[in-house]
Order: sequence, then structure tokens, then C-alpha cells
Amino acid sequence: MADVKSAYQQLIAEVKQIALLGSCAGVLGWDERTYMPKGGAAHRAEQLALLVGMMHERATAPQIGEWLAEIEDGDLLAEPHSEAAVNVREIRRGYERAIKLPKSLVEERARVTTLAQQVWREAREKSDFAAFQPHLQKILALKRREAAALGTGAPAYDALLDDYEPGETTENLTRVFSGLRGELVELVGAIAESGKKPDEALLRREYPIDRQEAVGKLAAAQIGFDFDRGRLDITTHPFCSGIGPGDTRLTTRYNPRFFSEAFFGTLHEAGHGIYDQGLNAAHCGTPMGESVSLGIHESQSRMWENFVGRSQGFWTYFFIAVQDAFPDALCGILEGDFYAAVNAVAPSFIRVEADEATYNLHIMLRFEIEQALIDGGLKAGDVPGVWNETFENYLGLTPPSDAMGCLQDIHWSGGGIGYFPTYALGNLYAAQFFEQAREDVGDLNAQFAEGNFEPLKNWLTKKIYSQGQRYRASDLVKVITGKPLSYEPLMRHLRAKYEPLYGI
Amino acid sequence: MADVKSAYQQLIAEVKQIALLGSCAGVLGWDERTYMPKGGAAHRAEQLALLVGMMHERATAPQIGEWLAEIEDGDLLAEPHSEAAVNVREIRRGYERAIKLPKSLVEERARVTTLAQQVWREAREKSDFAAFQPHLQKILALKRREAAALGTGAPAYDALLDDYEPGETTENLTRVFSGLRGELVELVGAIAESGKKPDEALLRREYPIDRQEAVGKLAAAQIGFDFDRGRLDITTHPFCSGIGPGDTRLTTRYNPRFFSEAFFGTLHEAGHGIYDQGLNAAHCGTPMGESVSLGIHESQSRMWENFVGRSQGFWTYFFIAVQDAFPDALCGILEGDFYAAVNAVAPSFIRVEADEATYNLHIMLRFEIEQALIDGGLKAGDVPGVWNETFENYLGLTPPSDAMGCLQDIHWSGGGIGYFPTYALGNLYAAQFFEQAREDVGDLNAQFAEGNFEPLKNWLTKKIYSQGQRYRASDLVKVITGKPLSYEPLMRHLRAKYEPLYGI
Repeated sequence: MADVKSAYQQLIAEVKQIALLGSCAGVLGWDERTYMPKGGAAHRAEQLALLVGMMHERATAPQIGEWLAEIEDGDLLAEPHSEAAVNVREIRRGYERAIKLPKSLVEERARVTTLAQQVWREAREKSDFAAFQPHLQKILALKRREAAALGTGAPAYDALLDDYEPGETTENLTRVFSGLRGELVELVGAIAESGKKPDEALLRREYPIDRQEAVGKLAAAQIGFDFDRGRLDITTHPFCSGIGPGDTRLTTRYNPRFFSEAFFGTLHEAGHGIYDQGLNAAHCGTPMGESVSLGIHESQSRMWENFVGRSQGFWTYFFIAVQDAFPDALCGILEGDFYAAVNAVAPSFIRVEADEATYNLHIMLRFEIEQALIDGGLKAGDVPGVWNETFENYLGLTPPSDAMGCLQDIHWSGGGIGYFPTYALGNLYAAQFFEQAREDVGDLNAQFAEGNFEPLKNWLTKKIYSQGQRYRASDLVKVITGKPLSYEPLMRHLRAKYEPLYGI
Repeated sequence: MADVKSAYQQLIAEVKQIALLGSCAGVLGWDERTYMPKGGAAHRAEQLALLVGMMHERATAPQIGEWLAEIEDGDLLAEPHSEAAVNVREIRRGYERAIKLPKSLVEERARVTTLAQQVWREAREKSDFAAFQPHLQKILALKRREAAALGTGAPAYDALLDDYEPGETTENLTRVFSGLRGELVELVGAIAESGKKPDEALLRREYPIDRQEAVGKLAAAQIGFDFDRGRLDITTHPFCSGIGPGDTRLTTRYNPRFFSEAFFGTLHEAGHGIYDQGLNAAHCGTPMGESVSLGIHESQSRMWENFVGRSQGFWTYFFIAVQDAFPDALCGILEGDFYAAVNAVAPSFIRVEADEATYNLHIMLRFEIEQALIDGGLKAGDVPGVWNETFENYLGLTPPSDAMGCLQDIHWSGGGIGYFPTYALGNLYAAQFFEQAREDVGDLNAQFAEGNFEPLKNWLTKKIYSQGQRYRASDLVKVITGKPLSYEPLMRHLRAKYEPLYGI
């Protein structure tokens, strides 16, 4: 038993060191996307390759496997959701994934995707799918090899999904998405046919950037992001980077003629940031101090962006601050009209610009195509046709070009197949958690209307943030809400919001 | 021979990797002083300790010693200033220093100086030398142990000097400084007695920060700093950080009521940056791609700040841009008066605010006290008395408090004993190089007056920047100017500038 404890302590110390090294790479990655001069790119690539290489070497060292085996043979893990059991379960998972992938495959993937991303950038600009197609084909072949090496059994797509959403399966997603799809298409259709339309144009007036920044930071701080332990910078493709305890960094981009882009973008990233700031610092670098999955992380960005930031209560409280900041743009505008505008729904081609109602349809389209590409025999060359046809079915529009269609996202070119579903999972989990929070802590909307976001944040911190990876996502939702993941809370949320707004 | 070559290649590869790891720490250090939220400090300390620890472990690995021995036994190093000979010479130097210091001493030094810096900060604020004294005593004991461990022979102070200025000796510095001191004291005295005074007050009008930034960046770019391969940020204590090829970062601080602070601070850091940008990228991470020493580095910051930025030619060219940027402050001001103002001389208490003439007296004072503390039996408790007495002798003023006297600098609290002389060396080397450059490339002042700084930059790049550590500082000055380091070029420069300005 003493040996098992000692093995556990050594394992944890080593895992923490590897994570600390990873957080150094995190600073370099943040810097690369915010302040690095363009001349620094080549050196930065070398720096990151060095750090990532060292991390990989240490993470796949046989010693890790020996410690794990010794601990798993002992009786330290009797209680399945204890700190030790959780850490060992997730370290084992990561170790297995890491050692199962041959180094040659990892290196080939890095080479192929680096080139593919360059080609994709140009292909998107020229809307030239044919240029990208051979690269996509190569990536698909590599991802199938990767899935086979991971060997989680059929379908192969599950092994890829699992990389982003541990334990998630095609079967479960199909169950949830198939119910959601029909109801969503119906709701979006009803909205499209409604005669009542919010005046979204008022968001497209002049919104000076310096004031957008001030208002965005004010809102992020109000909902609970701590700027003493974080910051907000500008970048091309917004992200949140959790460097470590006390250092969580948001980024956004400003459009001087569109209010929503930076404002809701900032709240979205602040949602990610509030999750990171709520992690248990004592467990930093171990699974007990890390977020559950991309889907649960996204549930928090969506929660704070949409369930809070686009709620009626939030605007009851915050509209005056926005109107004060932009007196020219918002002179004479009523709070209710502003609330309606930030919730306008309209089918559109670009996923990242989609509203709360249509967004998930963009994801389901990608989920279906990815499955077909990996398991169903769909060929890379047939993607544009299938994309456009499905898009028309779901959203009633046909993309005018592949740049506005199947070439719009960077994910596939970087090897990110199985990633998209986590975005929809984020919306679904957010809705289910939010319903439960309302049950547990009372009338959230009324609290928001008074600028009181702490009860929600405290509830989330207790239930999710401070728990680290104690539960996998699909278990977490059961532990918190008593039910498996369902699309119904999200549909209830959307109907409750849009039916009055659109007079449905 | 094949083995020797292979040992050399392996050594160089390893040394480059260690340097690459060091450059990761460089990004973290830059970030710590520019953008890191205050909550990130504890995690940052852990990150840096990890990286520095890994670097130290690799840099002191016996394998390095084995490669070195194998190479030194071979005939790869026949030509003493060849690439291989230089790299091996300097890698050997670093290796010896690293392995001679016991780990316990290094760790104790880190502990003692971390605490001492905290105490020093408060002691300076309260001008309470007694609080700092026991910490200084501990540091002195550690530095004496360090010098003994390095064992370069008496005097012990030489071993400390050598850390910052390889090959420099107390004897050589004493030779140069003793000649300089008398002449400087005389010149500063003559300036003080002159009835002619520049109107320095015109630099203390309203200088809006955004325009200071624009003008500072413009000037830095004009003299040759490449902003595609670098940037400029704000910090409390300005520095230049050379992350790697293509990524050199300057920092400065702005005072809205004093033009010189940020402007010449920016040119100073840009001078460091121009050196770094001129290093040979192919040799990055090896001595052939690194700067010679702190003194030579400082010679470049001083060169571009003072010999260029405070020259008459520079202001002939640049005054109009500054006047355009600050029409309120500089309405009706003549170029000549502005030039005189930025060259005003007045004895003052604080080293970092000292002018070109009095600056070196601040350094000589510290050099003498440091020697006495390490080798001459001066006790920590006697520092304030000796400081004030010497200050009065050199500058004709008595510090009103220790905060304005012996507590003003951070260096000692961080263990930086032997560092100060490199600042004066910078001025001396700059003057000697500048005289030679004028001889080699013609009337520099006339070139500056036309905004042409490239001939000087090209000369410096060829003679210094691209040479890496081919020569140690004291040899480099002989190779370039044909003479050993002398104080006479600096005195000629100062007299040529100040005699007409002050009507001496």
C-alpha cells in the first residue's frame, strides 16, 4: 500500500510537470495569436515543436505505464469518483491514446495538416474545392488509420469523437440530434414565415471600438470574469486561453459597424474563462483540476453568451450601460427592441455567424458528412454536392459557393474531424444545466435583471467547475440533472424565447 | 577526425536546443513584465523554475563535458577565431561556470535573492537601509562563496565581473576608470560653473502619450529597428528582449510631462534591438550567433541613444517630426534650443535619470563600493556613509536619503554584483567604436542630418553584430579600432558636444 501511494504521488508529480510544460506552450500559443511580430513565426514553430516533443516524450514514457499498473493493482481506487480514481482513470485514458498512436503517424499528420491548412486558406479564398480535395482525402485516410490504431471498435468515427469528447458516441449523438433536427427545422421555418421581425439593422450602426471594448469588459466583469486573474486582447480568430491558476486570457475582435460580434464574442470567451477561473487550483495539472471536455467547456461559453447575455433579464439590467456608451447609435431605441435585435433569427451560410436557433443545424450537417466520410463511404470529392443539398434541406438556402459552404471552416484541414459535434453538445448541455439551475437557485432572469449573476456562477462552480473531471460529460449531466442528455431543454428554451419574439 | 566532427555536431545541436528552451523562458519573461495579469505571478514562477531547471540540467550534463573534451583533443580548433573554435571556447566557458557552482549554492542564491528583492522594494520605499542590510550581508557572503567556487584566482571580484563581461578584470577597469574619473569630474564642474544653460523645461511640457508612442516608433524605425521583426510595448522597467531571429521586443514607459524619458528610452532599447536583429540567424543558439557581452550590448544602446539620438545631425533631420507631433509644446521652439535641451547636464541623485556626462560617475561609485565589499573588507553597514561621501566628491551633492542613494538600484538585491561596470563599459566602447566608424564611413553627422542611418548600421552589423562572440569584448575593440579600450574617445565626444553647448 505504501508503494501504491508512492507510485501515485510520483505519477501525479510527473503529470503536473508535463502540464506545467504544456502551460508554457500555452503562453507561447497565446502570444503567437496576439502580439508576436510576423517575423517571429519560424522561431515560434521551433519553440513549440520542442515543447510539444518534450511533453510527448514524457507523457509516453514507460514509467508512466508502470506507475499506472502498480496503482491499478492496489486498492487506492476503490471509490470510483474519488480524487485518485478520477486522476488515474483519465491519466490512463490519455496514456493509452498517446502510446497507441505510432510516432510515424503523429509526424505524418503534423506534416499533412500543416500543408493542408495552407492549401485550405487559399482554396477558401478562391472557392476552389478541387485544390483542397486531395488534401482532404489524405487527411481522411490518416484519420481512419488513427481510429484503427486507437482501436475502440466500430464505428471508427467514435474513436475520433472520443478525442474531443471522452466517452461520447455516434449512437448517442444520433439519438439526441435526430430528435432535435425535426423540431429545429420546424421552429426555424415558423420564424421565417412570421410577419414579425426584429429590427436587426440597429446593431449595424456606428459602434466605436474603444467603447465596445469598455462595454465588453464591463459586461464580462459583471457576469463574473475576474480581470485581476485574466485579461482581454484582440485577435483574428477569438479564443480563450487558460494559462494556469490566476491567468486566464480572453480574446475578441471588433467590428465598428456591428455591435454583436465583439460583445457576444467577449461574453462567449468570458464564459470559457469563468469555467477556467473556477477550476480547483490545488488540482492544477491533473484531471481533477481540468475541464471535463470540449462539449462541457462550450456549454459554459454558450451559457454565459446566450442563456445569460441574450436573456431579457440581462438587458433589463445592462441596456442603459450600452445606451450610455453609444448615444448616437442607440438614441431613442427601446430596451425591448434592442433585446429583440440581439435575438434575431435568420438562416445564413456561415456557421460562426449563425444565431442561436439555426446554429445547431450547421453542426448536424457537418456531423452527418463526417460520419459518412469516415465510416460511410462518402468520397472527399462528393462533399460539396452533399453539403449543398443537406444545407437546402435544413436551412432552406443553397450556398452560392464552396467558400460559403464546405470550405468555410478550418477544422478539417487541421485534422479536426469529430470536433464539430462538441459545439452542438455545448448548446444542449447549457440548456439542460440552465433548466436545472433555475430549479435549484430560483428565478435567474429576475436575478439578472438586478445585475446579480453570482447565484448562477456559484451554482456552476459547485456543480461543474470545481469538480474537474470527476465525471465524464454524459455522467455529469445525469449527476446534475438526474437525466441523460436530451434535446428537450434546448427546444423549450428556444421556443420560450422565440415564440413571443416572432409572434408564433 | 570523423568522431570529432560528429561530437561537435552533437554538441551544437544540444546547445541549440538548450538555447531554444531558454528562448521559451524569454517569451514568458517578456509576458510577465508586459501583459501577465497580476494573479498569474505564482504560476509563472513555477513555469520559469521548470524551464530554468531543465536548462540547467541539460547544460551541466556530463555528456557536454565529454563532447567538449573529445573536440578539444582533436584538430578542429586550429584557427582560434574560426566558427568551431569560438563556439567551443564559449561553450567550455559556460560549462565550467555551470558545473563549478554547487547546486546548493545556486538554490540558496535563488532563495536569498528572491526574499532580498522583496525586502529591498519596501526598504527603498521607506528609505530604510537597516532593513535591507542583513540581506545585503547574506548576498555578499554568497557572492564570495560563488567567486571562490568559480576559482579564477584573486581578486574575487573578477570572478563576478566575468559573469557579465567575460574576460574583464578589475585591473583593466581601474586603469580606464581612473583616467576617466578626473577628467569627467573636471568637465562636469566646468559645466556646473558655466553661465550658459539650455532651457530643459521645454521638455517638461504636455507631451500626449499616444503621440509620444508614434514619434518614438517612427524614430526607432528610422534608425533601423525593423518592426516586422519586433515590437514596442509598455512596461514599468524598460528592457529589450531578443526572443529569437525575427522576434525582438522593446519596451518603454511614458511620462506625459517629460519628453526625454520615453523617447530616449525607446532609442536606447532600439539600440539593443538593432544589435539583436543584426545577429547571424544561422548561428542562433550558439556563441557565434550571440552578443559579445553586456558591455558590448550596452555600447549599442548607448550608441543609438546618445551618439545618434542626441546628435546635432539627428535633430536637424528629426526635429520637424517632433514639432509636428507636439505643436502645443513646441510652438516657436528652435531646433538648436531643442538639441541643447536634450543634452542638458546636471548632477542628480538617480543613476537611471543621469545625463551622458554624469552617468559614468554614478557607475564608478558603485564599482568602487562593490570591490570594497567583496575584496576590501567594507561592511554592508558602512555602505550608506561611503556612498554619500563618494557621491559628494564626484558629483558635488549629498543624497538626501538612502532611497535617493545606495538603495536606488535593484541589482544588489538580486545578486547582481559586478553588473554595474558594464554600463560604463557601454559608454566607453560606444565612443571608441563611433570614432572608428566616422573614420571608416565618413561624416556620420551629415548622414544623420539627411536621415541616413544605414551606413552606420551596416558598419556595425559587419564589424560587431554579425560576428557573434568571435572576439571577447577587449579583443573586439582592438580588432575594430586597433587599440585597447581607452577613456579618451568618450572624453573627446563629451568635450566636443558640451564645450560649445555650455560655452566652455
